[in-house]
Amino acid sequence: MPKTRKPQQERSRQTVAAIVEAGLLCIQQHGVEGTTTRKIADAAGIGVGSLYEYFSNKDDVFAAIHEHVVNEIVGVVKPLIPELVKQSPEDATRALLYAFRDFLRQRDNLYLTYATQMGHFTPGHYLKPVNHVLAELTIQFMMHHPELSRLPNIPVMSYIMIHGGIATVIRHLSERSPAFDFDALTEGLARMVQYNIEGDINRLES
Amino acid sequence: MPKTRKPQQERSRQTVAAIVEAGLLCIQQHGVEGTTTRKIADAAGIGVGSLYEYFSNKDDVFAAIHEHVVNEIVGVVKPLIPELVKQSPEDATRALLYAFRDFLRQRDNLYLTYATQMGHFTPGHYLKPVNHVLAELTIQFMMHHPELSRLPNIPVMSYIMIHGGIATVIRHLSERSPAFDFDALTEGLARMVQYNIEGDINRLES
Repeated sequence: MPKTRKPQQERSRQTVAAIVEAGLLCIQQHGVEGTTTRKIADAAGIGVGSLYEYFSNKDDVFAAIHEHVVNEIVGVVKPLIPELVKQSPEDATRALLYAFRDFLRQRDNLYLTYATQMGHFTPGHYLKPVNHVLAELTIQFMMHHPELSRLPNIPVMSYIMIHGGIATVIRHLSERSPAFDFDALTEGLARMVQYNIEGDINRLES
Repeated sequence: MPKTRKPQQERSRQTVAAIVEAGLLCIQQHGVEGTTTRKIADAAGIGVGSLYEYFSNKDDVFAAIHEHVVNEIVGVVKPLIPELVKQSPEDATRALLYAFRDFLRQRDNLYLTYATQMGHFTPGHYLKPVNHVLAELTIQFMMHHPELSRLPNIPVMSYIMIHGGIATVIRHLSERSPAFDFDALTEGLARMVQYNIEGDINRLES
């Protein structure tokens, strides 16, 4: 009976999406520790029994939230790739950092609040799809800037830039009274990328 | 009656220290979420009632654990300062990163496990005394390398190096199968420091 099955699946999908959304709002309001399946169900406007039709426990909901957030980040970065690859490394870094900031800050810091609590999750998987889309960006960027393919140290450098950059941005946006503004941070990170490229090229040539 | 008071205080201090140590071991074994005041009291060899004589709840124990870890890090960095300031920025970065790695890895990754779960804590205070000792290191380092005082961008650059560096090291040490070893990461971070200094100096001179 595919005709009745489809709407049922569609309803399920919507319920799962509502639970994930409610979970994010609960984390924003109560923190990871203060979030319970009951609070999530209440915020989603369903009974806690309905929640347990889709998820076996709180960690299970958290895993779905995590997957959702990671997919959202990928959804921000991926469409930027065609424009970013045309820019200088410095400008591309700037554009990427501002896009990441806007993503984190939207909806009253919904994703920023989540990100500051994320240390909580199994480290192994924590950003895999994000790393993947950033690796895709790096590869496409190299294809548009063939002079960079001489660089000896791409894997280490991009690892430092990506993880160092993400952590620094999340940290800075969470500061109540930062010693300098986000533009200054972005400038510093963009220059760092440029200096690293120049430094490695000079080292090669000397 | 100061004579009876002193041993009592000493006993209290020892009990608090035992609770903090037990809490760290519980987090290592069960994670933040799986750690309860009962498990901590059991591991400390005291009744849960005794624990509540010293701490009002689990978060209160976590705050004490956090303070302890932060003090341990400060205790690692501070004695290194006199030696670090005599080295080049690149070598000092290397030495600091290896000391930080050894600290995180000791006792079967006790502090590393803690650090990967730390996103959980109020971001505001999370590394204040660590930032403080690193600021002290930076200032003393500048006094021994007066040529660096010309650099225009010390606050932003040291912020990026410190937060980016800490996050990258914790992240790398948590990877089950890193794409490159810790020596390669350290090399990359040490060069980054060097390139940033050279880059800013060249920018000043051009």
